[in-house]
Amino acid sequence: MVQARTYSSRPVLTVNLTALADNYKYLASKAGGTRIGASVKADAYGLGAGVVGRALYGAGCRIFFVAHAGEGKILRTSIGPKASVYVLSGNTPQDTAIFFGSKLKPVINSLTQARDWVRAIKDVNHAPRTALHFDTGMNRLGIPSEEVDVFATDQALIEALDVDLVMSHLACSGDAQHPLNETQLGQFKKISARMPMVPLSLANTGGIYLGAKYHFKLVRPGIGLYGGKITKNPDNEGVKPVVELHAPVLQIKTVKRGETIGYNAAFTAKKDMKIAIVSAGYADGLPVNLSGSDKRIVTSARLGKARVPVVGRVSMDYTILDITDYPGFVELGAKAVFFGEDLETQSAHSQMINYEVMTHLGARCRKIYVNE
Amino acid sequence: MVQARTYSSRPVLTVNLTALADNYKYLASKAGGTRIGASVKADAYGLGAGVVGRALYGAGCRIFFVAHAGEGKILRTSIGPKASVYVLSGNTPQDTAIFFGSKLKPVINSLTQARDWVRAIKDVNHAPRTALHFDTGMNRLGIPSEEVDVFATDQALIEALDVDLVMSHLACSGDAQHPLNETQLGQFKKISARMPMVPLSLANTGGIYLGAKYHFKLVRPGIGLYGGKITKNPDNEGVKPVVELHAPVLQIKTVKRGETIGYNAAFTAKKDMKIAIVSAGYADGLPVNLSGSDKRIVTSARLGKARVPVVGRVSMDYTILDITDYPGFVELGAKAVFFGEDLETQSAHSQMINYEVMTHLGARCRKIYVNE
Repeated sequence: MVQARTYSSRPVLTVNLTALADNYKYLASKAGGTRIGASVKADAYGLGAGVVGRALYGAGCRIFFVAHAGEGKILRTSIGPKASVYVLSGNTPQDTAIFFGSKLKPVINSLTQARDWVRAIKDVNHAPRTALHFDTGMNRLGIPSEEVDVFATDQALIEALDVDLVMSHLACSGDAQHPLNETQLGQFKKISARMPMVPLSLANTGGIYLGAKYHFKLVRPGIGLYGGKITKNPDNEGVKPVVELHAPVLQIKTVKRGETIGYNAAFTAKKDMKIAIVSAGYADGLPVNLSGSDKRIVTSARLGKARVPVVGRVSMDYTILDITDYPGFVELGAKAVFFGEDLETQSAHSQMINYEVMTHLGARCRKIYVNE
Repeated sequence: MVQARTYSSRPVLTVNLTALADNYKYLASKAGGTRIGASVKADAYGLGAGVVGRALYGAGCRIFFVAHAGEGKILRTSIGPKASVYVLSGNTPQDTAIFFGSKLKPVINSLTQARDWVRAIKDVNHAPRTALHFDTGMNRLGIPSEEVDVFATDQALIEALDVDLVMSHLACSGDAQHPLNETQLGQFKKISARMPMVPLSLANTGGIYLGAKYHFKLVRPGIGLYGGKITKNPDNEGVKPVVELHAPVLQIKTVKRGETIGYNAAFTAKKDMKIAIVSAGYADGLPVNLSGSDKRIVTSARLGKARVPVVGRVSMDYTILDITDYPGFVELGAKAVFFGEDLETQSAHSQMINYEVMTHLGARCRKIYVNE
């Protein structure tokens, strides 16, 4: 009787909710006790907004940011009726019913959105409150400078909007030395002084590390909660990795010296080798740029306590590891681990930013939440 | 009364099912009437295996390939009981019940999988038939050369497996000149000659273009069905684009000469500009490497009949377009279009392969199937 091995071919994304909660606390301490509004847009950066939102709620978070009304609707179902959920894209005509139904607060990015919203809530009881988002130099979404005067002087508009947050967004917070940080801070102070007396918010994860004068009443971390580092900032040491990709070994085989491995025959065996084919590829978010070719071995996976190089091209569903020098026996179903502590280096090797790699991880993997 | 504009902030992925069916017919003609087994793994390369599978079934397809049993289960629900669904990863211990429940055929990649399967079906009536997948030089999944003898001589094993397809997979079919194509073809003929008299299959999309001697009884296109081109092969002219990303314009604003746009202030306005912020970013599969910086404008989007450059960094949820020279009025909610005809060039600019870009498109977008 052979002992049942209990692995599936489907790769697994592990999301460590204890590390997530620890990062929440770490960022709160870095922000000196300022309130935290968690950015859980894009399905919590690919990690699953439902469970992640609930875990952050459990850690004390009562303010959340999503990009789209549809994301807010899903989040609301998961975290219940009490927390504030802001939608960063603001109100769009087709989504109004979702804002009302799920009690979502639009982040008003323009006079057009402001007037559309006021029109939409005209006959609505208990309409959600709103945030005003001023563009202070990012030149992306946000109320432009030429519209500030209207918001500052049209009392009826401001009252109708029932604003409970005034915010802006930093373009260069990852680089503490960038002059645009101070410029945006100055602009934000000038504009917000003309607005209703409500809490102010400017800082994303990078902004938290910029220091107290950027914190105001609310900070809005995203990547830091999920264990992502801000590349140019040394102030990351307290952030713990949250996410790992676990790819099961489906097959082990030998390759003779001179044979090639994988698509495009991009890797040639310089000696007799032993390889493990693991069941995760770029459809699971493992970038093709992590492939190992004759030119260069780019990265390795963790297998047990050892590291084993990625050889050959990462394909859609499978990736190949060189286990020739592996100190021990590799069982079928054993898990090769990507990302975790390596998120930043493996992202850099992929010619991508860590945020981008993270958002692609959740598509096909089974998600396992550790310490749920 | 202002006319209701009916856009949502959520981006849309359009999947053209007529183009898909046309590509099916085109590849069938290129394969000289050989049967087609469609590769719909990874959620049909991100386009939605349920609808795509049903559309291909409607076009006449009766054989499908997925990577994991779980993918097969979803596909089976969509296409009904009649078609063959092969699982390329083969049987894995934890997935056996799914194989039986959804009548999925394992692609046997090793003696271990063969023996596990025979053991699993011992007391099962009407167990699914199987495919044998031989590794002829790809050195990824597949029965290795040292196990061929057992499969060729163990009659009891072969009978128990109830094989209905013998296959292999080409490593370099994208490059018609690569010597490994002929080597693999030779190996495949040698091995298959020793196997049961069942249909043979070797060619993926690239293999179809390699010519009749690679076609055997069944070809297995993937990327070609979805409009993807094989880079080094001129034989693509009949393949039509299937997928477009539509990003709605959320805001239009002016930027003064000398101001910067977006994250990292990577783009500086050389003149007064008009920009459109559109609601799609890398969480929707628009790669950060398509960003336009002071160093280089990398790509453009289609807006109406014009093309408008991407300026500034592509962020998680938004991308910025330079509409300064746009010949006409841009309405809020207007759709900027990415990919489509541009899939290959935009993938190349992204430092990615078209397959990889495609698999990342479906995660957050609403999918609209054209001509369903």
